[in-house]
Amino acid sequence: MQPFQVPEVVVLRLPLYLRALTQLRDDGIDVVSSQQLGQLLQMTPAQIRKDLSYFGRFGKQGRGYNVDFLLDELQDILGLNRKWAACLIGVGRLGHAIINYPGFSPEGFEIVAAFDGDYSQVGSSIGGLKVQPMEELSRTVAEEQISIGIVAVPAPQAQKVINQLVENNVQGILNYAPFAPQVPMNIIVRNIDPVLSLQSMAYYFLEE
Amino acid sequence: MQPFQVPEVVVLRLPLYLRALTQLRDDGIDVVSSQQLGQLLQMTPAQIRKDLSYFGRFGKQGRGYNVDFLLDELQDILGLNRKWAACLIGVGRLGHAIINYPGFSPEGFEIVAAFDGDYSQVGSSIGGLKVQPMEELSRTVAEEQISIGIVAVPAPQAQKVINQLVENNVQGILNYAPFAPQVPMNIIVRNIDPVLSLQSMAYYFLEE
Repeated sequence: MQPFQVPEVVVLRLPLYLRALTQLRDDGIDVVSSQQLGQLLQMTPAQIRKDLSYFGRFGKQGRGYNVDFLLDELQDILGLNRKWAACLIGVGRLGHAIINYPGFSPEGFEIVAAFDGDYSQVGSSIGGLKVQPMEELSRTVAEEQISIGIVAVPAPQAQKVINQLVENNVQGILNYAPFAPQVPMNIIVRNIDPVLSLQSMAYYFLEE
Repeated sequence: MQPFQVPEVVVLRLPLYLRALTQLRDDGIDVVSSQQLGQLLQMTPAQIRKDLSYFGRFGKQGRGYNVDFLLDELQDILGLNRKWAACLIGVGRLGHAIINYPGFSPEGFEIVAAFDGDYSQVGSSIGGLKVQPMEELSRTVAEEQISIGIVAVPAPQAQKVINQLVENNVQGILNYAPFAPQVPMNIIVRNIDPVLSLQSMAYYFLEE
């Protein structure tokens, strides 16, 4: 795997391919053209062919892609053929919504521990997990082989929490706090930020 | 404004610029180079100069960008110099987290109505709003000049809800349901989907 040869924007699009292909498979479709895939994803067929070409040759000229095969290959490329352990930091309202979100586990992302800096939360139960104090982060991340930290604390505390996760060798941060985290180059950050999504939407709106 | 001349990926990045510039302004910084901005955003200076060049000339060769000016211009370009009204569909746990999210209103996105298809929820109060039945959608969207529908219903109900929003002339959909919505070309969809983020992360992880 040579991750840094593929542009990040392409990697960011692969999960959308996965989702579309899963939908096609569930609809009983065996072969899909880049035109059909493009229609599903609101992308040009040329872009789809270019994206996939980074990873090898998946389709036969004029014959389209085999849905099952492409799905398996993309899952393999994305490292989704195994489980990844995650921990949640912050068990407020948002933390509760996250831990109860049914989408993670079927995709191989398992939240195996929950932490909060507020001692009044420690020991309470959330999604079947006992909330741990931040002092336990180091030991638990190592013991449970946690790769991902999910940050659901308020913005003013978020950088400190992220620093602690980085120090404890987490590889990825899923950040829900509305701020721009600073991390070393080798740490992968994804910001879940509905405001960013809304802001990039209004550009296209017509004034009324 | 000629929205379709600018690649969507560039528009999607503009809010990140806004956020970085706001942070710089709050830190009392007046002028920023594309190098410094690149460092904040994990992007190359060349990419930043290219992105901004779509919208005009903001910097002077070798002098960097004026933070306040660039911030104002980008807000203007993105249509963020005004308020946009949104409605929430689905007042479950996720809906509650959304309506209590403090980030929308300061950025000009105001949730002015909440709906649920479950009659047992109708009439209850959420974030200061009375939950309305779906039958009221048409009237309320028109009356309150709602541009954005925030979809927080389970996946199996989401396409139907999105269809109703589209029929009632909402311009944008912020979709939290884990599925790929089908909408007409003129409707802007943003999917909030932590699974997509996690899936694009694991690609970079080292196996342990």
